[in-house]
Amino acid sequence: MECLKYKITKQGEVALFNFELDEAIEPEDLKKIKLPDPVAEKVTDKAVVISGRGPIWLYGFIIHHFHPCMAVAVFDPRLGKAVIVESHSKKYTIGETININIGG
Amino acid sequence: MECLKYKITKQGEVALFNFELDEAIEPEDLKKIKLPDPVAEKVTDKAVVISGRGPIWLYGFIIHHFHPCMAVAVFDPRLGKAVIVESHSKKYTIGETININIGG
Repeated sequence: MECLKYKITKQGEVALFNFELDEAIEPEDLKKIKLPDPVAEKVTDKAVVISGRGPIWLYGFIIHHFHPCMAVAVFDPRLGKAVIVESHSKKYTIGETININIGG
Repeated sequence: MECLKYKITKQGEVALFNFELDEAIEPEDLKKIKLPDPVAEKVTDKAVVISGRGPIWLYGFIIHHFHPCMAVAVFDPRLGKAVIVESHSKKYTIGETININIGG
């Protein structure tokens, strides 16, 4: 399933995972989506910020995928910031917001 | 912060975590929200379905909290079903949908 396109951009200690959907996504598509390996992408020592328009369950899937990383955050367009939702480091606290340039 | 109210309802192998927000939630509220302990609630052997209206980062926080459980799913009102987003059991597959009565 190539409905999900993504780009990873590193900005210092933060890695932005920006995705786009070409078409409406259905739950069963999650079985076919290949997300990038955090180790191969060298983002396990970074806070991964997820950004893009998609259903909450797609976010849940992506968030869990990046669980091996130092921290995971969700970009909120309303706030213009990313919110840390899980952290395995003292560098980031849940509920902390981080500024990131999402481009576009 | 008591802005988040929730109720856990068990339905066989599934536990529904239904939440409501009294007011607009801000990221820093995540530092104060006390989610129920999955072990004390006896839901670690269940698929926990999260349902409620709130920002994606709140979902991310709740999904990660229930990581010790057998599986975690997000209820999608558009589909009228819950979608498995992480699973630690062969009983559930990512992308699988499950029917659940969310009441209301």
